[in-house]
Amino acid sequence: MRLATLPDGSPDGRLHIVSRDNARCAPAEAAQTLQALLDDWDSLAPALAAQSAVLNAGGGAPFDPSAALAPLPRAWQWLDGSAYESHGALMQKVFGLDSTPKDRPLMYQGISDRFIAPTADVPLPSEDDGIDFEGEFGVIVDAVPMGSDAARAGAHIRLVVQINDWSLRSLAPVEMKTGFGWIQAKPACSMAPVALTPDELGPAWRDARVDLPLVVELNGARFGAAEGYPMAFGFDALLAHAARTRQLVAGTILGSGTVSNETFREIGSSCIAERRGIELLDQGEPATPYMSFGNRVRMECRARDGAPLFGAIDQQVVAG
Amino acid sequence: MRLATLPDGSPDGRLHIVSRDNARCAPAEAAQTLQALLDDWDSLAPALAAQSAVLNAGGGAPFDPSAALAPLPRAWQWLDGSAYESHGALMQKVFGLDSTPKDRPLMYQGISDRFIAPTADVPLPSEDDGIDFEGEFGVIVDAVPMGSDAARAGAHIRLVVQINDWSLRSLAPVEMKTGFGWIQAKPACSMAPVALTPDELGPAWRDARVDLPLVVELNGARFGAAEGYPMAFGFDALLAHAARTRQLVAGTILGSGTVSNETFREIGSSCIAERRGIELLDQGEPATPYMSFGNRVRMECRARDGAPLFGAIDQQVVAG
Repeated sequence: MRLATLPDGSPDGRLHIVSRDNARCAPAEAAQTLQALLDDWDSLAPALAAQSAVLNAGGGAPFDPSAALAPLPRAWQWLDGSAYESHGALMQKVFGLDSTPKDRPLMYQGISDRFIAPTADVPLPSEDDGIDFEGEFGVIVDAVPMGSDAARAGAHIRLVVQINDWSLRSLAPVEMKTGFGWIQAKPACSMAPVALTPDELGPAWRDARVDLPLVVELNGARFGAAEGYPMAFGFDALLAHAARTRQLVAGTILGSGTVSNETFREIGSSCIAERRGIELLDQGEPATPYMSFGNRVRMECRARDGAPLFGAIDQQVVAG
Repeated sequence: MRLATLPDGSPDGRLHIVSRDNARCAPAEAAQTLQALLDDWDSLAPALAAQSAVLNAGGGAPFDPSAALAPLPRAWQWLDGSAYESHGALMQKVFGLDSTPKDRPLMYQGISDRFIAPTADVPLPSEDDGIDFEGEFGVIVDAVPMGSDAARAGAHIRLVVQINDWSLRSLAPVEMKTGFGWIQAKPACSMAPVALTPDELGPAWRDARVDLPLVVELNGARFGAAEGYPMAFGFDALLAHAARTRQLVAGTILGSGTVSNETFREIGSSCIAERRGIELLDQGEPATPYMSFGNRVRMECRARDGAPLFGAIDQQVVAG
């Protein structure tokens, strides 16, 4: 099942089902909004799946991803991991951080009251803040009981999404040094237009990971195509970590952190900071600048046969 | 104006106005929920203020604070500062942390999808986690534009609240060391039953701070009565810090951090960790244990003449 949210003047928008080729859509009959669906997934999803099967056979209206909002335009909780060790190890080396424990996930709680539409302009206050993107995968769950282990938490993964976690690198180190995490360095994220139930990924949903590359283009040029699979912890384990002392509210979005591979010198990166870190190690200083107003970043994960999945995030940053 | 939320079966409850003596209440006519009021404060507040004036003159139903939910039972954003330097300096000394910069506030983003009702039991997973309370003040704003300075941000403070920021001390150091902030160490907070417009505090609302003591009792014994005024940054400056790179959504709750005074040896503390830190410094080891299941904590800030303001948080922790 594929879901998208189209604008209807309300903050949560109107939930639509999308055909398997991302070409057609229809208003969801069983739920007005994605949050309403997640609040009552078990009882509402079967009817939506049936409507989805009908849509896949034909009919509906053309789906225009450039008109879509984020599938979940606002959420009660956004938790972001940093599950790719190649990224973490590089950042630690570059920033001289203490090495982080390998036996537990890294995770922070970020702004969730808005997720930016996939083609909307992204207003940010200053080019001096080190404007960067972070290409990620994420999952959306219905309610996960406190104390759930990975298997039980993973059973609550209802949707898989693709996210750009905007980051302001000039503001990050001082916030990180406090131990309190990031406020200023992490403005609102963007989300690709289509949310997928895991079965839509077929064998590419493996071990609670997305086994596909995330293609990132900066100003039209290939920037990276890192594979999603090599997470040190799968989304199930990340959820269990988050649920250790809290029930996860239905609609919690949990992110993977910047998709990154050990082969980043060949395959590229999903954020500028990682490329700058490589440049610093290899050439003595970073060469790739952070983003300027008017710069664009495009991110899309497709199936290995080229079939569309999440649709694309394709945005420019502008003066906010 | 005084506001409370009573249960009506919905997640957001039913907004009520409360009389100045906290004895009587009536359903708010202009808004069903506090979030709806905050979404449109400027146009709805005058009618509520008029209804409040009528209620203060008489009528309404008895207000039972033990039946109240948190004034805002869930919020789109919870940001918590650590604005009392006496607390921060002690914690740094005890935990051997880097000294934090004095020129900028400390702040983290925490769980906001539920604020626990003021007399509800608080379910937590383990007594081994170092169960602690943090008595705090907080403010609730309507929408604050990105880039607002302290004066402009402070003008959006609509309500003042009293909060217990539950903390699990055994889980905090490893999370803090990552720089990512806390997930497991910070479960949902509790909130006192009555939210006040700043004018209800009279001269005790001073420099965007609450100039009153917060009385904390652990298992019926006085634990602390620290004064709220000595924040290194007022709520206006804390809001401006948070709004540096994001618009603050209407309904954002911003906390002061544990209320603490330089005279904590005489006046007491608003959390166990601070008392344990004092014991460690003065006696070589902590003596006060963290909370066990069945232990109760009560927190209340009253006017200097004893008049009720926020009502009390009075809860026991239980096995979750």
